[in-house]
Amino acid sequence: MNKIIIPSKKGKQGIGAGVWNLGPGRDPFGGPTRREIPILDRIPLLAAAGVTYVEAHDVEIPSSDVTKAKKLLKQYGLKMGMYTPSFFAEPIFKDGGMTSNDRTVRKQALQNALQAVDVTVELGAEVMVFWNGREGFDFVLAKNGQDSIRRLIEGFNAVGKYALGKYGKKSPRFAIEPKPNEPRANMYLSSVGEALYLISRLDPAVQPLFGLNPETAHSRMAGLDYVWDVELCLEAGKLFHIHLNSQDTTRYDQDLPFGYMEPLKDLALCVVLQDAKWEGILAFDVKAPRTDRQEDIADILHTSAANLQRLWAKAIKVDRKKIAGFRSTQRYTALAGYLAKCLY
Amino acid sequence: MNKIIIPSKKGKQGIGAGVWNLGPGRDPFGGPTRREIPILDRIPLLAAAGVTYVEAHDVEIPSSDVTKAKKLLKQYGLKMGMYTPSFFAEPIFKDGGMTSNDRTVRKQALQNALQAVDVTVELGAEVMVFWNGREGFDFVLAKNGQDSIRRLIEGFNAVGKYALGKYGKKSPRFAIEPKPNEPRANMYLSSVGEALYLISRLDPAVQPLFGLNPETAHSRMAGLDYVWDVELCLEAGKLFHIHLNSQDTTRYDQDLPFGYMEPLKDLALCVVLQDAKWEGILAFDVKAPRTDRQEDIADILHTSAANLQRLWAKAIKVDRKKIAGFRSTQRYTALAGYLAKCLY
Amino acid sequence: MNKIIIPSKKGKQGIGAGVWNLGPGRDPFGGPTRREIPILDRIPLLAAAGVTYVEAHDVEIPSSDVTKAKKLLKQYGLKMGMYTPSFFAEPIFKDGGMTSNDRTVRKQALQNALQAVDVTVELGAEVMVFWNGREGFDFVLAKNGQDSIRRLIEGFNAVGKYALGKYGKKSPRFAIEPKPNEPRANMYLSSVGEALYLISRLDPAVQPLFGLNPETAHSRMAGLDYVWDVELCLEAGKLFHIHLNSQDTTRYDQDLPFGYMEPLKDLALCVVLQDAKWEGILAFDVKAPRTDRQEDIADILHTSAANLQRLWAKAIKVDRKKIAGFRSTQRYTALAGYLAKCLY
Amino acid sequence: MNKIIIPSKKGKQGIGAGVWNLGPGRDPFGGPTRREIPILDRIPLLAAAGVTYVEAHDVEIPSSDVTKAKKLLKQYGLKMGMYTPSFFAEPIFKDGGMTSNDRTVRKQALQNALQAVDVTVELGAEVMVFWNGREGFDFVLAKNGQDSIRRLIEGFNAVGKYALGKYGKKSPRFAIEPKPNEPRANMYLSSVGEALYLISRLDPAVQPLFGLNPETAHSRMAGLDYVWDVELCLEAGKLFHIHLNSQDTTRYDQDLPFGYMEPLKDLALCVVLQDAKWEGILAFDVKAPRTDRQEDIADILHTSAANLQRLWAKAIKVDRKKIAGFRSTQRYTALAGYLAKCLY
Repeated sequence: MNKIIIPSKKGKQGIGAGVWNLGPGRDPFGGPTRREIPILDRIPLLAAAGVTYVEAHDVEIPSSDVTKAKKLLKQYGLKMGMYTPSFFAEPIFKDGGMTSNDRTVRKQALQNALQAVDVTVELGAEVMVFWNGREGFDFVLAKNGQDSIRRLIEGFNAVGKYALGKYGKKSPRFAIEPKPNEPRANMYLSSVGEALYLISRLDPAVQPLFGLNPETAHSRMAGLDYVWDVELCLEAGKLFHIHLNSQDTTRYDQDLPFGYMEPLKDLALCVVLQDAKWEGILAFDVKAPRTDRQEDIADILHTSAANLQRLWAKAIKVDRKKIAGFRSTQRYTALAGYLAKCLY
Repeated sequence: MNKIIIPSKKGKQGIGAGVWNLGPGRDPFGGPTRREIPILDRIPLLAAAGVTYVEAHDVEIPSSDVTKAKKLLKQYGLKMGMYTPSFFAEPIFKDGGMTSNDRTVRKQALQNALQAVDVTVELGAEVMVFWNGREGFDFVLAKNGQDSIRRLIEGFNAVGKYALGKYGKKSPRFAIEPKPNEPRANMYLSSVGEALYLISRLDPAVQPLFGLNPETAHSRMAGLDYVWDVELCLEAGKLFHIHLNSQDTTRYDQDLPFGYMEPLKDLALCVVLQDAKWEGILAFDVKAPRTDRQEDIADILHTSAANLQRLWAKAIKVDRKKIAGFRSTQRYTALAGYLAKCLY
Repeated sequence: MNKIIIPSKKGKQGIGAGVWNLGPGRDPFGGPTRREIPILDRIPLLAAAGVTYVEAHDVEIPSSDVTKAKKLLKQYGLKMGMYTPSFFAEPIFKDGGMTSNDRTVRKQALQNALQAVDVTVELGAEVMVFWNGREGFDFVLAKNGQDSIRRLIEGFNAVGKYALGKYGKKSPRFAIEPKPNEPRANMYLSSVGEALYLISRLDPAVQPLFGLNPETAHSRMAGLDYVWDVELCLEAGKLFHIHLNSQDTTRYDQDLPFGYMEPLKDLALCVVLQDAKWEGILAFDVKAPRTDRQEDIADILHTSAANLQRLWAKAIKVDRKKIAGFRSTQRYTALAGYLAKCLY
Repeated sequence: MNKIIIPSKKGKQGIGAGVWNLGPGRDPFGGPTRREIPILDRIPLLAAAGVTYVEAHDVEIPSSDVTKAKKLLKQYGLKMGMYTPSFFAEPIFKDGGMTSNDRTVRKQALQNALQAVDVTVELGAEVMVFWNGREGFDFVLAKNGQDSIRRLIEGFNAVGKYALGKYGKKSPRFAIEPKPNEPRANMYLSSVGEALYLISRLDPAVQPLFGLNPETAHSRMAGLDYVWDVELCLEAGKLFHIHLNSQDTTRYDQDLPFGYMEPLKDLALCVVLQDAKWEGILAFDVKAPRTDRQEDIADILHTSAANLQRLWAKAIKVDRKKIAGFRSTQRYTALAGYLAKCLY
């Protein structure tokens, strides 16, 4: 399949997807339903699905696999969209990385983060994402919250200084991905606002290196609006990456196809990104559902990409003057009707 | 404006809307933003918006206004879609009607219900809706729940017997409208399943008179899927009425325009109703937002109706054979992609 | 440790817990953090934690392990509290059991259910629970909902007839456990009301065999009140079993210790159970968190049981006359204050 | 009644409450159930309920009533806890104040804010709260989000400069109160993190004047943990005020009594405030429910205050060494059990 193109998009072309999107169909209540495809074997599948930018965790493409991975990426005409250290899969990080109550774990987390910086550079990714899935707590008072904040600041500062020192202007940029809960009952960096605040607390020298990777579904898990969350990032110059998917609101993390649950909001999101002339990668964080057969494992990417292409094209045709008109007369219900008509 | 028509719909044609949809813009945090239009003056406005079936509460069109209301309905070529006693607006019902802890209130509630049956008949509505907005409790143990169930059964039985006795086969049918919370922290008849269960407990003689009025937004307030809720009603032969709107999930009751939040689910709902050859009225329970100006008060109906018309037409074109094919191969993500393509 | 006793409780004494409560700490984002304890080896651990009634799935104690299991139960002075077929763990049930779109899967599900009936009897459990975790759908129109209802009715009828035919009056009773979502986006049998409704649709001959196993956390996942849900079951004579735990509301299924999140509601629940003179088993469905060490794996049971014991004792002391007084004057805020004072 | 005292609390003694807490029982579905008590007549009622610090909106105690209000406060031994401009009640603010799409409204909002600063000073309150209830949007694209951020920054900067210029070191401090939704579908300043971020964007000269007024129920409406939210404020030195109440999670704003829904979290909150030696006012934002009779209107304050007193006293007895021990061994479930035992 040819690479998926998003017509008239500024900056980076093609879509992004993670190797984990094509998992074996495990979930909290059941084991795999499909054969587990070796991580590197997923690269050709992503290419076949029209992906341009690949994403992976450090536990998926460890340092030792970098050479092989680069070769494969080149062979299939792919690039690395982002790379991200996992502070959630391994037992050692059961209580978090940077904010674990165990000092040796915190040290290990920092080590992993620094190594991930190097691998990010080796793989040629411009962005490293921090989704610190276990920073937080399941029971109140399990951590001293004020200490946790200081530890997050200290951790991110250390990463930033390492990257600046070693790579200078060629340092990758770091995108924090907020999420309110799951796998912890209460997670630090729970919202876009909280992550932007944390960045404001970092050492001014490293602050420019830090931004966000908002994920549409994560905003919805707290009932928040992702269009507003993205606008917050854009205004701050901090939209470093974006994860597109959909979510049936305040419940478990679903990673449904982009454009499925709330396409009218997705249309608005495209309008906002277009008007901001955003140049980053449009990446999916979706998950092949347990029910899809082995041979249909990429349906989640096909569906998300086809939806995105249509939404983007429709967003271009949304008449900005009409929007302005509805705003000036405060005819917001009519605006909603106009947008619905633009969509369907 | 001409009446809105839903092409190829079986049974009743034209859309329904409530006189309360065109309120003055009051909300829990602020007073009116528009002139309060006298209830009967809203009838011409509904007609002008293309509505065919009008809905009203007993406190809006009391017995004393029936003659005037009927004249107006006739004048504007409208019919009464449903009529409903309010057990929530008046202070006397602050703790519910049928389940109030105060026996005199329970008696009054029954009186109001019986009178509403008569007015329903006089106005020519075939359905009377029960949205018992204050049956429930704000604090645990405030009511004896087992007593409450018995009181609901007793109350509905009394209404059914009255109607059967007085009107026989010409009795209106009664549609219970479930809602999980607001204005009470916990409401009885919280879900479609619970209402279907309650009906199963009624006297067999009156059971056929009782069915449901599911409201899409109310299902979403509990995070439930309204397509499934409607299927539950259809299979039971209990879909007596339907309230269409949209809702940004588990939060306060919003009454947003139909087709705004989750149009793909709305498309599926149209498919389900078409395949069931459902003959009832497609009615909106929406609310002109506080921000809309006096002259734009009907935008909420225009937007909902235009959305419904397009969705209904697109639903007709959904290829049922393709749906069957996706089901037989369990290609559900591809099915979602196909539906998105049918929608937009 | 001695068996945990709930003073003044009618009927069955001692608490129940599932062998799965003591899992290895796996979750959707990370592998095990503890050694996986063989299922039968968990029986002594449950005994050591003071449990009287053990619960297990058919995939945990399959038919082939019944003899061993019975021996162990006897050795440790335990009884089987309930037994339950898993229609969710195995890949074959990826799209449900009774409502799978695949006929052969539906047949297999029925076979498993019938076999589970036999094992339930062999193990001496009086109740078999149906938590049909994958009956439902992730995408709209993935199943024909009306067919699904008929298949559920057909499936439960078949189970009931088999049990009646084979065991007559000695048949185990069947308790349906509702849940709104996870692992499916939308689950059938989503609420207590829906399950009670389904039972009303069963063949009258088997209806008396079917009741509910409400789980407090599952009600909360839909934002519903579990005190009311339990009252619904009690009034219907359908509270066959109960699963106690706690949940931080509308989000992923947490299985937190009973008495942790909303102890005042838990106190009210104890009052309701006491006043109903309920005789069933008070069982926990909790999950040792990923963070607990191997040696602390039973903390979740110790905490839940200690909480339950204190709550039960405090509930006994709640002055029912005072409750009645607050009800008659509708002083519900004062009632809430009184309950808080009874609790803490 | 004597003033309510919170033993061993540092700094300000006595509790705070708003005059609006004692409203007539209006809600979105029904009119008043009690006589509307004139605002100034509520001051003696608050005194009688043991309150020390009174709170009010500018529409409740307008500039013209300041003299009368001060006299009453003095007469009843009360102080002004905080004062707050309402940008939500009046029709002119139907689309927000500082972020209204209408320039003249934005000007009016600023005027009201500046006047409120003066009244705050006149009334002797040290804190002015900004709960900008209508900054936000009901439909996507109804506002330009990036403009909205800039307008919020501009507005708060203007207020800060005015206050600094006029009152210098004696200026009141400003506490922003976040809320995710209601009365708007999506509200700006939706979370504590977002408000902290916004403050980081203010002019450095006025930044020290700005902090937060987190409200426990508002955090819960987004499913967030208020203990963590308060810790975020404390670490930043930005906990300027606090609103205590409770909420049955992601639904309409309930303003239930403090200590009712999640008392174990409330206990933890007290521990956190004690350990931080916080010196501010412990204030309630609760609402006399519609069901309470005129003579019982203060039950909501009695209940909240009695709960707070007991929780505070129990929190003092929580053994911090034990907490530290549980943390160091990561025995979090045991910690939860210990806290439950401390509570009840």
